[in-house]
Amino acid sequence: MSAPAFAAPTGPRVNGARLREHLEALSVFGRPSGGDFAGGVSRVAYSDADVAGRRYVMGLMEAAGLKPRVDSAGNIFARRADSDAGAAPVLFGSHIDSVPNGGNFDGDLGSLGAIEVIQTLQEAGIATRRPLEVVVWCNEEGVAYNNGLYGSRAAAGHLEPGELDLVWNGVRKSDAIRKVGGDPDRIAEARLKPGYFHCYLELHIEQGGTLDKAGIPIGVVEGIVAIDRYDVEIRGFANHAGTTPMPERRDALLAASYLTIAVNEIVRREPGAQVGTVGQIAVTPNAPNVVPGMVRLTVELRDLSASKIAGLGKQIMARGAEIGAMTHTVIEMRQIAHHDPALATPEVQKSIEAACDKLGLQSRRLPSGAGHDAQMMATLGPMGMIFVPSVGGISHAPGELSRWEDCARGAGVLLETVLAWAG
Amino acid sequence: MSAPAFAAPTGPRVNGARLREHLEALSVFGRPSGGDFAGGVSRVAYSDADVAGRRYVMGLMEAAGLKPRVDSAGNIFARRADSDAGAAPVLFGSHIDSVPNGGNFDGDLGSLGAIEVIQTLQEAGIATRRPLEVVVWCNEEGVAYNNGLYGSRAAAGHLEPGELDLVWNGVRKSDAIRKVGGDPDRIAEARLKPGYFHCYLELHIEQGGTLDKAGIPIGVVEGIVAIDRYDVEIRGFANHAGTTPMPERRDALLAASYLTIAVNEIVRREPGAQVGTVGQIAVTPNAPNVVPGMVRLTVELRDLSASKIAGLGKQIMARGAEIGAMTHTVIEMRQIAHHDPALATPEVQKSIEAACDKLGLQSRRLPSGAGHDAQMMATLGPMGMIFVPSVGGISHAPGELSRWEDCARGAGVLLETVLAWAG
Repeated sequence: MSAPAFAAPTGPRVNGARLREHLEALSVFGRPSGGDFAGGVSRVAYSDADVAGRRYVMGLMEAAGLKPRVDSAGNIFARRADSDAGAAPVLFGSHIDSVPNGGNFDGDLGSLGAIEVIQTLQEAGIATRRPLEVVVWCNEEGVAYNNGLYGSRAAAGHLEPGELDLVWNGVRKSDAIRKVGGDPDRIAEARLKPGYFHCYLELHIEQGGTLDKAGIPIGVVEGIVAIDRYDVEIRGFANHAGTTPMPERRDALLAASYLTIAVNEIVRREPGAQVGTVGQIAVTPNAPNVVPGMVRLTVELRDLSASKIAGLGKQIMARGAEIGAMTHTVIEMRQIAHHDPALATPEVQKSIEAACDKLGLQSRRLPSGAGHDAQMMATLGPMGMIFVPSVGGISHAPGELSRWEDCARGAGVLLETVLAWAG
Repeated sequence: MSAPAFAAPTGPRVNGARLREHLEALSVFGRPSGGDFAGGVSRVAYSDADVAGRRYVMGLMEAAGLKPRVDSAGNIFARRADSDAGAAPVLFGSHIDSVPNGGNFDGDLGSLGAIEVIQTLQEAGIATRRPLEVVVWCNEEGVAYNNGLYGSRAAAGHLEPGELDLVWNGVRKSDAIRKVGGDPDRIAEARLKPGYFHCYLELHIEQGGTLDKAGIPIGVVEGIVAIDRYDVEIRGFANHAGTTPMPERRDALLAASYLTIAVNEIVRREPGAQVGTVGQIAVTPNAPNVVPGMVRLTVELRDLSASKIAGLGKQIMARGAEIGAMTHTVIEMRQIAHHDPALATPEVQKSIEAACDKLGLQSRRLPSGAGHDAQMMATLGPMGMIFVPSVGGISHAPGELSRWEDCARGAGVLLETVLAWAG
């Protein structure tokens, strides 16, 4: 590069062109037939595309001088050997599975960026006091078996009872784990002890549009938001749309419409970055000529503050009771999930900011609205995450894009932060 | 009956107990396994249950002294022979097909009530100047092949181009017609000439709750409402529910919620019996953690006045444009169907009222919000419909119920009206 976008005044520098080359090569596994890089990727965990992508990634690890191993849960670990074998490692990585019709940066950047950090250090002949260990987590997205962060949950001891016996697309989860080289009979061995690592770091795309809009290249994650999920059932009465006079209707979809608007209004009327979404709805009988008799919908609330979204949930429930009375329907709102927030360790946030300063990169602290494997690692030790901008805030779609120079900048910040923690 | 619910001062009287017996016997064909009469019926047109029910009905016709014939479209006609063969008949009947999980009165009452009228006249030895002809129309509900009033449309010359080549549940419509004894190769022969009948009469349950609420046993139908159907497509932008800040969302389901409420408000703010329904909705991608990117929904408007619902449609479209601007979505509303109203002939309405007066039964004029085969017959000659109360206004559901005494009253009014028109 004749005019580098950034330059560390001293020390090793990641190879942005090589990182791009690897991201483009990985994108082939799960690419829609006839598509190109811009057409996105479908690399759902345990699929043949996932298996092929994992093989490619393990090849990159070997080329960087690492010896990858697959743990009993199906996660890929690769530790750099030339260091104090007794010390807790700096662990860093991400995942390479995708949602269907997803993009080529979610997970891939953090996984291949981690390998790029190792290869850069190898080439520069730089050893660290603590071992460095790269990890590629299995099934982060949770499309398969409808439960995300699987690999990091296995490592943190947070698997659900009976989870390995679930069947999805005709395959039992234990057999899917075997397909990617895991050993479900010894799943407990995948669990990491608290203190296993000295620090966990994850580079990732923001997936929202905050950094892109502000023109800031690096986000320092303050934490991963708490999530409350509710199932709402609205019971009205299904009847003939031609013969049921308007005043006598008990229209469940009309009630659902009032509730959807209420969620939006209640979430927006307080200051802050909290979000609330009605994303899924099922109407019965769902025919043009029948007054809807029943609706089920989901309400999801997210914020760094668990108490704030608990309060929003209560306000929505109270408004739901009013809407039920007004529309002659019965609205039942039941909380089905709560995820605690996972705050990033303040010292790690500071060291990421220090790395940005060293590289002359502007940074901004922000919450992560999406879940990440890092939140599971936060239960075991110090954790930090580095975000790079997502153009237009688009993610989980073929149009997901982060500029190549931002990818290289993110990997550079990861390298500096790894070095800061590895001594 | 020791204390008859009503009595004609003179002349023949229908046998309410026999009518009930026939309705209960017909209910067996399509009854859910292990169910009873109260469990409703699934007798979708062309199904084995429909074929068996038709065979039962033709047996009743024969027992009443008629010789049923199946026309080339699959409709069952049965003409009483002892009258002036040259004169146009009084035609009356209904249908016996049902929606899935429907009730035991919709169509059945008018079909078996018509046969009861003939049997009553046979037993009383009463001849009429004009021939009487009973009809049981094929596939009124239109669940099969998604197009109702099939048999009466064939008779009125209103089949769609290519309709007989449609495939539903793996069977071509022409083969389904053959299954019920029709001859699709000669479908044109099913068409009736204008003037074929002197008057068409149909006894039916109201399906709405107006008569039941008012405690009035007989409804005199003023006409069958006009229907306008619209498809609405709302395009927003699907994005991550955790990472997309509230002000930057283009939430298609939020827009759909505003539109659903707008349909309700616009339809209700004018006086009258018009109705408007959002009955069907499809959300993409419909996941709890994704801001909805696209919604398709249906808007259906009904009233006796076609110009009134055209005006309501325009108001909804205008409001849709405002909602699109407010929610940063694009709302496209496209009319996909228009059915003209079918007004009942004033003289026939008067003769139904006269029959009620003769029998000492209170009656009320009202529109039919539902479509009926009678609307097709209205294109060929004088038409009238007799409604009996639906308890609670429930229809197209197992809980559909009309009191046995009301069924008998309705058949009695049909008998008197038939006699008035048959001379």
